[in-house]
Amino acid sequence: MAHTESKETGKIPEPTLRRLPWYLAFVKLLKGKGETFVSSTQIAKAINVDASRVAKDLSFVNISGKTRVGYEIDSLIAVLDEFLGFTTTHKTFLFGAGNLGGALLQDSGLKQYGLEIVAGFDIQESLVGKEINGIPVFHLDDFPALQSKYGATIGIITVPVEVAQSVADYIIKGGIRALWNFTPFRIRVPEGVVIQNTSMYSHLAVMFNRLQNY
Amino acid sequence: MAHTESKETGKIPEPTLRRLPWYLAFVKLLKGKGETFVSSTQIAKAINVDASRVAKDLSFVNISGKTRVGYEIDSLIAVLDEFLGFTTTHKTFLFGAGNLGGALLQDSGLKQYGLEIVAGFDIQESLVGKEINGIPVFHLDDFPALQSKYGATIGIITVPVEVAQSVADYIIKGGIRALWNFTPFRIRVPEGVVIQNTSMYSHLAVMFNRLQNY
Repeated sequence: MAHTESKETGKIPEPTLRRLPWYLAFVKLLKGKGETFVSSTQIAKAINVDASRVAKDLSFVNISGKTRVGYEIDSLIAVLDEFLGFTTTHKTFLFGAGNLGGALLQDSGLKQYGLEIVAGFDIQESLVGKEINGIPVFHLDDFPALQSKYGATIGIITVPVEVAQSVADYIIKGGIRALWNFTPFRIRVPEGVVIQNTSMYSHLAVMFNRLQNY
Repeated sequence: MAHTESKETGKIPEPTLRRLPWYLAFVKLLKGKGETFVSSTQIAKAINVDASRVAKDLSFVNISGKTRVGYEIDSLIAVLDEFLGFTTTHKTFLFGAGNLGGALLQDSGLKQYGLEIVAGFDIQESLVGKEINGIPVFHLDDFPALQSKYGATIGIITVPVEVAQSVADYIIKGGIRALWNFTPFRIRVPEGVVIQNTSMYSHLAVMFNRLQNY
């Protein structure tokens, strides 16, 4: 989709991108314990993947380890945090402030990972005009005005399934460039728009099934 | 892990299990529109997968379609809901009632999918003894007593990374049989215990990266 891809910002395999935050969490844990260096073998053991995979994954990141001692922990944390986008503030709107949406507004933890939810939107009279965890909830009709003000790039989709596609179309037209979709509906997006699905109900289904078969 | 596997409860491929809730969401949407039959081609088009894959996925479920008209929608919904475990109540404890944990307690929607959170646990004085969305939060030390009372099978893990493993070990010893892990820490579990990771921060990292490269 991108016309040019430099080596640094090139397409990193998604599995690598998914594993890097695990490494980061583990390395932060070591830092908390007073450690200063970590080897890929140590990370590999903790995360339960091959050491060669860890080294390969980390080769996408601009950091080099030293023979025998490994990576300097402070640098590794700083580099990973930045590389993963957690140090950049991403202005975000949330669409659908009901059960799950309202819950996500309550989660101040996302801000520490670079996701700043600046406003919520809904159409329910009981929600519009309210504040949840200090975040104002507006009527969906006010989205264009608020978008002019904030220029949000990310939209969290927690609306009912039956309106997921129409809300997505509406906000993409209005300038939202990435959707974090929590609904079980498969939203279609035009080329160049990012879609990230977090299917909590799919995870539930997998868990229930495994539980039944163990 | 299971010693015997009947055809009905045999190991279904995880990708199939993850897709079935998407089909279910779409079929419920059609029902809302007054439709009575759905073909695998229709589902395939909506979800953006091959029709043969949809038919294959649905072959794991005890339902058969009719030539030309497809599946009867009411039956398909009932069969999928039950097959996925959404109609069974799974008693669940939540560990770590802070940011994300507190948020999940607020989400009454999970109950409709068979996940009933009956109690939360924390060690923070400010949280212990409180109720969130009608769900009581107890001190972690009270877990054994509460487990005797409720016999919960699932534990949601939303504790800080540094205690994720120790809390997991503690509650598995106490009888919890499946962990729904929301921390970025890779928890290790003994054989026979189910672990389901929902790595929201990994999803964020993937989304941020794609956004940057589009």
